[in-house]
Amino acid sequence: MLAPDLPALRGIETPALVLDRAALMRNLAAMAESATVNRIALRPHAKTHKSAEIARLQVEAGAIGICCATVAEIEAMAAAGLPGLMLTTPVSDAPKLARLAAIARGTALALVVDHPDQVTMLGAHLGGDGPPLQVLVDIDVGQRRTGVCAPPDTVALARAIAATPRVTFAGIQGFAGHVQHMVDADERKIAAAGVAAALHAHLAALRAAGFSAEIVTGSGTGACAFDTQGPYTELQVGSYVFMDADYGRLGRTGGGPLPYEPSLFVLATVTSINRDGEFTVDAGVKALAFNGPPPTLMLGAPEGSTYRFGGDEHGMITMPPGHAAPALGSRILLLTTHCDPTVNLHGRYHVVDVDGRVTRWPVLGRYGS
Amino acid sequence: MLAPDLPALRGIETPALVLDRAALMRNLAAMAESATVNRIALRPHAKTHKSAEIARLQVEAGAIGICCATVAEIEAMAAAGLPGLMLTTPVSDAPKLARLAAIARGTALALVVDHPDQVTMLGAHLGGDGPPLQVLVDIDVGQRRTGVCAPPDTVALARAIAATPRVTFAGIQGFAGHVQHMVDADERKIAAAGVAAALHAHLAALRAAGFSAEIVTGSGTGACAFDTQGPYTELQVGSYVFMDADYGRLGRTGGGPLPYEPSLFVLATVTSINRDGEFTVDAGVKALAFNGPPPTLMLGAPEGSTYRFGGDEHGMITMPPGHAAPALGSRILLLTTHCDPTVNLHGRYHVVDVDGRVTRWPVLGRYGS
Repeated sequence: MLAPDLPALRGIETPALVLDRAALMRNLAAMAESATVNRIALRPHAKTHKSAEIARLQVEAGAIGICCATVAEIEAMAAAGLPGLMLTTPVSDAPKLARLAAIARGTALALVVDHPDQVTMLGAHLGGDGPPLQVLVDIDVGQRRTGVCAPPDTVALARAIAATPRVTFAGIQGFAGHVQHMVDADERKIAAAGVAAALHAHLAALRAAGFSAEIVTGSGTGACAFDTQGPYTELQVGSYVFMDADYGRLGRTGGGPLPYEPSLFVLATVTSINRDGEFTVDAGVKALAFNGPPPTLMLGAPEGSTYRFGGDEHGMITMPPGHAAPALGSRILLLTTHCDPTVNLHGRYHVVDVDGRVTRWPVLGRYGS
Repeated sequence: MLAPDLPALRGIETPALVLDRAALMRNLAAMAESATVNRIALRPHAKTHKSAEIARLQVEAGAIGICCATVAEIEAMAAAGLPGLMLTTPVSDAPKLARLAAIARGTALALVVDHPDQVTMLGAHLGGDGPPLQVLVDIDVGQRRTGVCAPPDTVALARAIAATPRVTFAGIQGFAGHVQHMVDADERKIAAAGVAAALHAHLAALRAAGFSAEIVTGSGTGACAFDTQGPYTELQVGSYVFMDADYGRLGRTGGGPLPYEPSLFVLATVTSINRDGEFTVDAGVKALAFNGPPPTLMLGAPEGSTYRFGGDEHGMITMPPGHAAPALGSRILLLTTHCDPTVNLHGRYHVVDVDGRVTRWPVLGRYGS
């Protein structure tokens, strides 16, 4: 089990991302098993981990490919030789389309679009060579973020895709980001059913127009247990690899938490102990994403302690009554707040094996890196 | 003036940090002028910009040195040859002290401590060679983050510093982070006066014990106009170089905003335009810090538009009634939310000159970089 005083962690400069490899592997196995039982494919999302090593472990566990949110992520995954890459964000500008076209010359890719102009631009940027590009219609299933709203627009886009050289219409995406984080399992289940119904309406319109959707992709860690019953052919789950203070709050139907465990922590050092009942660590807003609940699990701090942000480089931990502060310089492992943007704050993972050895894995494709 | 359709910005992949050099230079000049008039020194804080180029401009404008929040920042500034480096965060662990000792062999440094054990550890890590290290006592002026609380503890620490070879007692730091962001000028002025009174009490205790504080450092962009009257010998102002949606809300005594202007923006691309009255850009939680008000200024969007976060890679902009969405692929310049942690999300600045030319400056010392 991960402990903040592991000898191998002593030389690591804090704050630092620490990944419990055994817990990660159990999460990968649990999701793979669930997919096998439910006869559904996994194309996990790399926006969570931005790591070629973790993506490779996901593929080794049976995933058919890897989803990416940015061109930089898909470039990094293509360079690492990962198969079945899909970009889940519509692209609408020339610099990114040029980079995508360069990847597409050597690698089979899937993309999503939500507007005819994107199809036209895509056609203009693709050269004549390379494997055909799979293009899916992105559908707005209630998040009001990207996607087509009405089924007739989905059909029109499918027609535009089919009429464009070197691309093939491959199906639809409906990502319900707003549903994934609903804490109550019943509420989440009902919302997921609503999303599935919306996707069925788009699929019916496509069928009536003579199109078949080979791929129906969407879902996430919060709703995947329900979405095995939906129209999906594959699930783009992400956060299950790490879990975090946010997903840790989510219930599962029948009670209890989701069947995945915390594997990702931020290692911090105790830097100030002058106030009764609390102490300060060197992990603040630049080490832990702010858009999630503060860490609920703090290894090295008394049980029941709470964390509050103290600016860029500081976090304050309040202990339950009766505890003395840890020694200056000692270490605390903080559960991540919201895992995806927390990973993005760090340049590398420190991966801890069961024998206590530490390996470094880079975080890839951060902006301007 | 900065415009999102500047030809030189066209090839930049979004989201990206864009810095208006003319506005930056005006901010540097305004703060330098204010310091000259008030006969106070500036040691601006690099945690805001993490840039050797901006630090150099600050020194050229008259600053006596540069503050840093982390060892990685002070390493980067030392490598760039910047003078007068001060680390404003107490350090309590061996890996960081070893790196600091390595810098201190060739560079004059100032550090802060808030516990006798830090002085002992510092003494143990410093070798016999190199210039003397200036050590200040960090004082908790109400933020409950780091610092000594009671004046007798300040005196005890000054004695411990004075008794340690190769270090000299140089003064005190009192940083009131909680005061800097108070929107109302009168409330901020009263709070700043309370902080000054607390520092005076610590200074009186030091004087009574025979210590003189050569340096009294603290303050920030929000309170610096008041702190010229306090016990400070120098101001560690940071955010004035960029301003942001947060500091843009702050009033000044007598009315009007602070006398600095927005210079830092995030360039984003319009990626989805399917919903009436709003559109989506490719700048979300991984491009704009979440711990600040959303952008209040959006160049390229209709006046009165509002931004909401849409996850890692998306932001949604709602327009006032009667406006059509910009074309897919067009660009928007978003004022930064909270500038310090927003900079930390990017690997580089794109600095735009008055003639429209763009230069890239790296963001230094991010975690694990």
